[in-house]
Amino acid sequence: MAQRHGDTLIFSAPPVIAAHAAVGGKKESRSPLAEGFDELSRDNRLGQKTWEAAEKVLQLRAGRLCLQKAGAAERSVNLVLAGDLQAQCTASNYTMRELDIPFAGVFGACSTMAEALGLGAALCAGGMAEGILAMASGHFCAAERQFRTPLSYGAVRTPTSQWTATAAGCCLLRPAGPGVLIRAATFGRVQDYRVRDINNMGAAMAPAAAATLLHYLADTHTQPAALDCIYTGDLGRVGSDLLAQLLEAEGIGPYHHEDCGCLLYGSDPQVHSGGSGPGCCASVLSAHILPRLESGELKRVVFIATGALMSQTTFLQKESIPAIAHLVELAAPAAAQEE
Amino acid sequence: MAQRHGDTLIFSAPPVIAAHAAVGGKKESRSPLAEGFDELSRDNRLGQKTWEAAEKVLQLRAGRLCLQKAGAAERSVNLVLAGDLQAQCTASNYTMRELDIPFAGVFGACSTMAEALGLGAALCAGGMAEGILAMASGHFCAAERQFRTPLSYGAVRTPTSQWTATAAGCCLLRPAGPGVLIRAATFGRVQDYRVRDINNMGAAMAPAAAATLLHYLADTHTQPAALDCIYTGDLGRVGSDLLAQLLEAEGIGPYHHEDCGCLLYGSDPQVHSGGSGPGCCASVLSAHILPRLESGELKRVVFIATGALMSQTTFLQKESIPAIAHLVELAAPAAAQEE
Repeated sequence: MAQRHGDTLIFSAPPVIAAHAAVGGKKESRSPLAEGFDELSRDNRLGQKTWEAAEKVLQLRAGRLCLQKAGAAERSVNLVLAGDLQAQCTASNYTMRELDIPFAGVFGACSTMAEALGLGAALCAGGMAEGILAMASGHFCAAERQFRTPLSYGAVRTPTSQWTATAAGCCLLRPAGPGVLIRAATFGRVQDYRVRDINNMGAAMAPAAAATLLHYLADTHTQPAALDCIYTGDLGRVGSDLLAQLLEAEGIGPYHHEDCGCLLYGSDPQVHSGGSGPGCCASVLSAHILPRLESGELKRVVFIATGALMSQTTFLQKESIPAIAHLVELAAPAAAQEE
Repeated sequence: MAQRHGDTLIFSAPPVIAAHAAVGGKKESRSPLAEGFDELSRDNRLGQKTWEAAEKVLQLRAGRLCLQKAGAAERSVNLVLAGDLQAQCTASNYTMRELDIPFAGVFGACSTMAEALGLGAALCAGGMAEGILAMASGHFCAAERQFRTPLSYGAVRTPTSQWTATAAGCCLLRPAGPGVLIRAATFGRVQDYRVRDINNMGAAMAPAAAATLLHYLADTHTQPAALDCIYTGDLGRVGSDLLAQLLEAEGIGPYHHEDCGCLLYGSDPQVHSGGSGPGCCASVLSAHILPRLESGELKRVVFIATGALMSQTTFLQKESIPAIAHLVELAAPAAAQEE
């Protein structure tokens, strides 16, 4: 069960992340977080004819590795909540052609992983499922031609642009048992600050991250210093700076903030502002954040995934970019809380 | 709470559809079901510059009318579950820019309404929400250029093709109270019978409808004759014939079947096989099915919305079309059960 405070569900018996997996591509192989990935491929095609099909393979690998690490059969999972950036979410749809599990597609752009975790946790906490997979993926080459220009144009990327991670992440949620606890979930409201530059997603998404975080802090009466870390995904350097300004204007602080888009690629100059895409924070969650919670190094964090909700069509129609951010509060497993 | 039997959740205290609304465009104004719509516009642009923006207006009208009919304020709703066919679900994203309610985007192509109803019912039944809006929309002109060719090409449509309804539907779900009961939900598994013709969605989707219905009948030990009607959305005439063949091969019968895609446009020859799109069954649900349950004319039905999960990209890449179907069991309100 859960108590609702404002936009936030606080789970009285928190569901857990029983297992998780992260897979990545070529650039991710050189990530400072590479060691935390379960599989890395130096071939971004993953043996497929198209980038889109390669992304499907990434997501499917993440799903299967997650089940394997949990020692769980497909039949022990009641539902998959998955999404991606391809038009009509085809990376997830074609992944689910290979998995014999009921499937509900979700779309939150780069916020997809937190949306799936929040919905999955609520369904587990409400007694509606014994096992749920939450998955998200992205692919640099599929996303560039989906949202911007074909790679072969060789367009110069601006300093504010972000690099869609060729990566996928998957978490297996259970109502109880060993694993990192999902103690609360806050679903975001759409924010639109009239940003129109599709090469500056960070600026479009920072207000959404701030809005959802403010709801969560107020709903749960939490001081930001009580959190070991506020993880956002994926504002990049530009969006992270804007988030700091927005939070300062609201009198929020002190706090410790890390952005998955900055963590994934470190100081790699090619990525400009940082990583992005549904697979970025999904893989950083599995490769970096969850292990630190499992070891007890972190006790309590929030994971806020942000999504820019435009398409190439709305961009060409000169619409501004609406954004959303969903949040889950994660805590070290009971056994690791005292370490 | 709920009991899980196989893929089906049976709600011990069924959530209700407290209010609902349907809006449509020009062709829908001539529908045999036109009287059941709350608003019909003879201008498919709805005063907007683009078809995509017009679809947003349709969905927003459906959402606002639903709240108005319920006498409910936006703040009495905890979450909106909405989706559509535009790439990156922008009709829903831009709708939610106008509504100040937390939002979780869902994608199930034409199955979106049943997916949203199933997830929403599970969240209400699990004590996770006091009010949820489930919404879906489609627009003929936006969908044709998204999936096939720009309208101005004047391409000839094949006899198996379906007509994407310019329509939107919205339901307000509550954990209890007056309204049609959602007694069970079955989330579908992806089926792919290697259909590659994007002008024959019915053939791609019929196996998904059959698979989900078979799960539901087995999970709930229901004889199909115990259902006043099996409503599918939207197989059209071609897909409905195939569903009948698939069910006959499984020894299922007798039963009464109606397809939302056939109901919406009656014998209009221009639509060929029938209506389709997320807005088709969403609006038929509100304009036709729910009123008949509310009056007690129908006591118990299943609503199975089917979705074809391809994109124009996967079509051009010569992938086959995966499909999915989600089901909710609906029952007349307690007060109307005995009439």
